[in-house]
Amino acid sequence: MGKILIKDCTIVPISGPVIEEGVIAINDDRLHYVGPAGGVPAGWQADTVIEAGDMVALPGLVNSHTHAAMTLLRSFADDLPLKQWLEEKIWPREAKLEREDIYWGTKLALLEMIRSGTTTFADMYFHMDAVAEAVVEAGLRACLSQGLIGFQDRGGQRLATGVSLVKEWHGAGDGRVTTMLGPHAPYTCPPEYLTKVAETAAGLGVGLHIHLAETKEEVENVRAQYGYTPVALAAKLGLFELPTLAAHCVHLTTEEIALLAEKKVGVAHCPESNLKLASGVAPVAAMLAAGVNVAIGTDGAASNNNLDMVAEMRTCALLAKGITGDPTVVPAHQALVMATLNGARALGLEKEIGTLEAGKKADLILVNKHQPHLMPPHDVEANLVYAARGSDVDTVIVNGKILMAAGEVKTMDAGEIYAQVMKRAGRGQKKFHLLPRLRG
Amino acid sequence: MGKILIKDCTIVPISGPVIEEGVIAINDDRLHYVGPAGGVPAGWQADTVIEAGDMVALPGLVNSHTHAAMTLLRSFADDLPLKQWLEEKIWPREAKLEREDIYWGTKLALLEMIRSGTTTFADMYFHMDAVAEAVVEAGLRACLSQGLIGFQDRGGQRLATGVSLVKEWHGAGDGRVTTMLGPHAPYTCPPEYLTKVAETAAGLGVGLHIHLAETKEEVENVRAQYGYTPVALAAKLGLFELPTLAAHCVHLTTEEIALLAEKKVGVAHCPESNLKLASGVAPVAAMLAAGVNVAIGTDGAASNNNLDMVAEMRTCALLAKGITGDPTVVPAHQALVMATLNGARALGLEKEIGTLEAGKKADLILVNKHQPHLMPPHDVEANLVYAARGSDVDTVIVNGKILMAAGEVKTMDAGEIYAQVMKRAGRGQKKFHLLPRLRG
Repeated sequence: MGKILIKDCTIVPISGPVIEEGVIAINDDRLHYVGPAGGVPAGWQADTVIEAGDMVALPGLVNSHTHAAMTLLRSFADDLPLKQWLEEKIWPREAKLEREDIYWGTKLALLEMIRSGTTTFADMYFHMDAVAEAVVEAGLRACLSQGLIGFQDRGGQRLATGVSLVKEWHGAGDGRVTTMLGPHAPYTCPPEYLTKVAETAAGLGVGLHIHLAETKEEVENVRAQYGYTPVALAAKLGLFELPTLAAHCVHLTTEEIALLAEKKVGVAHCPESNLKLASGVAPVAAMLAAGVNVAIGTDGAASNNNLDMVAEMRTCALLAKGITGDPTVVPAHQALVMATLNGARALGLEKEIGTLEAGKKADLILVNKHQPHLMPPHDVEANLVYAARGSDVDTVIVNGKILMAAGEVKTMDAGEIYAQVMKRAGRGQKKFHLLPRLRG
Repeated sequence: MGKILIKDCTIVPISGPVIEEGVIAINDDRLHYVGPAGGVPAGWQADTVIEAGDMVALPGLVNSHTHAAMTLLRSFADDLPLKQWLEEKIWPREAKLEREDIYWGTKLALLEMIRSGTTTFADMYFHMDAVAEAVVEAGLRACLSQGLIGFQDRGGQRLATGVSLVKEWHGAGDGRVTTMLGPHAPYTCPPEYLTKVAETAAGLGVGLHIHLAETKEEVENVRAQYGYTPVALAAKLGLFELPTLAAHCVHLTTEEIALLAEKKVGVAHCPESNLKLASGVAPVAAMLAAGVNVAIGTDGAASNNNLDMVAEMRTCALLAKGITGDPTVVPAHQALVMATLNGARALGLEKEIGTLEAGKKADLILVNKHQPHLMPPHDVEANLVYAARGSDVDTVIVNGKILMAAGEVKTMDAGEIYAQVMKRAGRGQKKFHLLPRLRG
């Protein structure tokens, strides 16, 4: 860490209007100054100066729902009916994953995230201590939860593992790691189990990360079994009295949307996964109009098949317009807010990240606008949302530390990660050959 | 030109199964051999050898509908109702565009296309001789048509310009330029004008490029005015007796879909533009099931806002699944076929391009799979469609000529293009400053 000065960039602070030819000063892990050139406090001297005349600075993107280690299952099974995809492909393969697989699959995910501008993510999977270890090493920020299945006889054991994650890892990595409890969904956790998880989370002082109303079948089955829809059941059991991050929320009634707004539930909208698995399209415009805090997530790489939040932001905006028939919904600035500040809020981190304001944590990205697809620069926010790609991200800073500069990731060894992933993704399946450039 | 050997690559020929560790031999402008290593005819010696162990080779992508020079209006006006967007923003700005603006806006588009793997495109705009000039220089393949508006008193003059384009440019650039006549749409061309254009095209031996059934309003207005829907009217006037490239086709009846299949109309599906302008979602799965030749297009950069066919292919596949509720529709291989062979067929070029087969023109791209978001390589076609980005394209070859190698475009001067575009996009608007790296 130390003092970093980013000069001469276009700043999209999210919290206010775009600043042309702006300056950002970073003191250790926090933003010291964000504004027009000349506003840096007198006498302040940088250790590192970044000449950013070609760059747009914006808050690091927040991926509000993913399963990072599922990069191991990227393009492993596609274009199948949901039930067959899960039961014949994904679950049997997941059952074979060991702790070290999760560690290396997560490493690959973190490399992909850094390279495409994600600085913070919310993750729910298993062997989450391996995920936490990878996050601490790679330098990102993450909100982690052990996925809890309440059926079968191991629900209690799983909850104990989830509690251990909270106790051992909350606050790790200079505070970059936070935790939640992760009851998977109302269709995999019976009501009494959900209640117990919520009581445990309240005792620990953490929130909940849950899948809700992803498919029509889920809504129908939960209602048939318990007499309530997933959202209504979660509310009735008191889950929403805690900070709750609810992934998907595709199939909602108007009353449920009002409830999500009233209870300040953070919704992780995953448009590409919902399209790819044919789950449907979440009522994003209606949720935003009702005041719901809607963030954006990629879901896991098995159902996306990437972790690119730039692309996800774009799909979110385009899809909302096409589905409502109203081209004015989810304008570019709103999509950016969803991918930054709303994500921060959904993870309980809005006081620390999500905008570029003095005093907040120094989590930001520089996007290289010196690209044919970003010319001419009529509107920087529209270009970021509608024309940019994850690969345009040039520099990534988290907690005041430079994780990537000029497209080169500083905190990870890509060659080692690829070699480990090739070996582990192929285990029990066909063997992958290492590419020539990766040998030796 | 000359003899090029591409070694050790994964080949996605489209016309057949994926070939691992394959070889491609190019003789001047044509593919000489595509297949397993060792199959290159004895005695054949390459002038240039490309070591492609990290690469996937596939046919160059075909953008079946765009307005290239509209890059000048990228992110110029977004998130507005269609009527306001067109009447208050786009049309007034277009009215100020001069021939040289079109030339430089097209150059920017061609640079963006090459960098993201598009080797052939269908374009409809004005000052199309400037577009043809830019295409011949840059080395791409294109099917060009002057946009014809039949109302007002200049319809005849516009048709004469369209005919001149055909006569002067068809076959230019060693055959890379082909032409069509481009009656804009049934709502901008009265029936008698459409008939005259079709007769003229028949006389010239070229096809037609037209917008059809893009919005509900168009369908309703055309039916109210003429008693037929746009597709039915086009059929009744005999347009479909000629090779026809019909852009959009969003709002169709089952009978119209059957008609498009029977008449072998090429449909340019533009999913992102249709979403962004809130025009709706075309019935792609139904069209494909009925045997319609559905290709993919980006439309212009003012309504997309990029010309990235990799992203468009992905949106096409994801959206078709989400809208139908069936995750098996538009599987990865089909999306690739749509973006290559179906595009070639829609432009009347399927005998020359669209697949990697010996004897066809050497139009191909190499995608660098050595990326975190393309690891592990479980399924190369799924990775290309669901996980790849335009920026993963490393090498582009058209008509046997290398237009880009290792991400560097050989046939264009990016600095000059950016400088010209900055000047021209800002004319009559705010002036843009050149970025520091572009000065001097």
